[in-house]
Amino acid sequence: MKATAKAHTNIALIKYWGKRDESLILPMNNSLSLTLDGFYTSTTVEFRNDLLEDVFYLDDKTVTGNEYYRVTSFLDLIRKQAGNDGLFAEIRSANQVPTAAGFASSASGFAALATAAVKALGLPYSNQELSVLTRQGSGSACRSIYGGFVEWQQGTKADGTDSYAVQVANANDWDIRVAAVVLSSDAKKVLSREGMKRTVETSPFYSGWLESVPSDLQAIKAGIKEKDFEQVGSISEANCLRMHATTLGANPPFMYWQSTTFLIMEAVRALRADGISAYFTIDAGPNVKVLYMPKDEEAVQHKLRSVPGVRNVIVSRPGSGISCM
Amino acid sequence: MKATAKAHTNIALIKYWGKRDESLILPMNNSLSLTLDGFYTSTTVEFRNDLLEDVFYLDDKTVTGNEYYRVTSFLDLIRKQAGNDGLFAEIRSANQVPTAAGFASSASGFAALATAAVKALGLPYSNQELSVLTRQGSGSACRSIYGGFVEWQQGTKADGTDSYAVQVANANDWDIRVAAVVLSSDAKKVLSREGMKRTVETSPFYSGWLESVPSDLQAIKAGIKEKDFEQVGSISEANCLRMHATTLGANPPFMYWQSTTFLIMEAVRALRADGISAYFTIDAGPNVKVLYMPKDEEAVQHKLRSVPGVRNVIVSRPGSGISCM
Repeated sequence: MKATAKAHTNIALIKYWGKRDESLILPMNNSLSLTLDGFYTSTTVEFRNDLLEDVFYLDDKTVTGNEYYRVTSFLDLIRKQAGNDGLFAEIRSANQVPTAAGFASSASGFAALATAAVKALGLPYSNQELSVLTRQGSGSACRSIYGGFVEWQQGTKADGTDSYAVQVANANDWDIRVAAVVLSSDAKKVLSREGMKRTVETSPFYSGWLESVPSDLQAIKAGIKEKDFEQVGSISEANCLRMHATTLGANPPFMYWQSTTFLIMEAVRALRADGISAYFTIDAGPNVKVLYMPKDEEAVQHKLRSVPGVRNVIVSRPGSGISCM
Repeated sequence: MKATAKAHTNIALIKYWGKRDESLILPMNNSLSLTLDGFYTSTTVEFRNDLLEDVFYLDDKTVTGNEYYRVTSFLDLIRKQAGNDGLFAEIRSANQVPTAAGFASSASGFAALATAAVKALGLPYSNQELSVLTRQGSGSACRSIYGGFVEWQQGTKADGTDSYAVQVANANDWDIRVAAVVLSSDAKKVLSREGMKRTVETSPFYSGWLESVPSDLQAIKAGIKEKDFEQVGSISEANCLRMHATTLGANPPFMYWQSTTFLIMEAVRALRADGISAYFTIDAGPNVKVLYMPKDEEAVQHKLRSVPGVRNVIVSRPGSGISCM
């Protein structure tokens, strides 16, 4: 009745942007990510007969409110499938995902939670079933079931049973780097869920976004197969710019970028002008991640750290999928 | 055989973005601008029997190359209509349009040139005919025939005879201000013609742009009629963001903004957060224009001048249309 699991977070190179079903968390388009070894969540779930409700500790602090509710609602799904509605759990999570770097800790969080909970209850889930389940906690978390490059296939069924992640390439296949650039100013918060929804509902560019994703996916998968770094990097950067462009068309328009975000984009372009192959990607927030090759470590670090407003640069390698302890 | 004309430049609040005919300069959408009193071109055209070719002086310097060719080709149109193919001209232009502020001097330039040339040859052109003619020299120049708020109606005919500007409101109707923010760094040049073409041909957002223009136009004209500054300003800013968003979807993607551009956008948003009604608009380049009300002169000037990378702020009022001297 007790199990521990670890899951890494992931960065989307082809973005998940727009839901076709808000409650089942079904996406409007396929997305593709890279799981990162530097950032993870470890979670222990113990189901106990003596508990009257779930208790959730994150980094040894009791969690209440919305965050607690999200976790306990998610466990309800699993309890229902196990036919064990009245059994509550103690959940202990430790997060190695700095929010200042702009990673969604919900990705590693829900992947670790689902894996530990399912194992604690002895449910014989395949990774595919685990991905379907995890998706219902946090969309992008379904990709963290696998290591390396991972595609979330949107699926077509209304019940979401064909909307799950599949591995495209193993973490050990290709040694590339992702630098997470930590900004010194506090990130102003525009919730990604809210921004995504407003964009889908009001931006005249949303259909153009959806049109462009299939060719991006096809080209980036070919690039991953060939280990063509320019192709993978340039498609990632173009896809990110297209995602952010859709928000400029929302009503009212908005942008996730801040001035430091913009300076980092310029720094990455300057690296390329100097012959160093580096590409940026930006999720629904001001933080920038930079893709580069191991040989360019020093030049990239030096350039990024010289940008005013940058506090730290945290480097990660391709990471593995979920593991149980 | 000699005449002098003066024309002011204009700033588009609803952008001209994309051509349906490259050689006749026919646009894909209607646009709407404000003519500005602070920036103008004065041009004297003298047709003379002793010249073997046109001669063109800009600010007392002889112009050759592409710029000369563009002017002399434009005069060919007028000579043809006058039935006077072999008659050449001396053209003397003085530009009061600082390129550092990112204004297209071609707008005031071609409006003044067309007006002076037509008058020198004694052609009985209406302002509407003058606008059709001017458009063939430089698209946005057709709006500088009129003062105040001006709409360029795209027209539907293949020969372009119904693609011309009309006045929406007189320059004296409404006293508002436009600050042109001059950047201290040299603007990196991405030609607007080239960027426009690449965007129309490759951006999945271009159709969304076209879809959104009619409602912007309707709403901004209602705002001008009601003198509703918030409405005119917010629609101008949203329209500008949408135009720039289309470039992020081009293949390859590009942007006209630089880091100082971004800081100025943030400063304008900060003014609004402080209750001061100011809105930005940006053409195909890094320079920003800020719309505001006369009562906010001091606060706006102070804020814009405090942005790092800003060298100067030049204020303009609504300007008048072409005049002959």
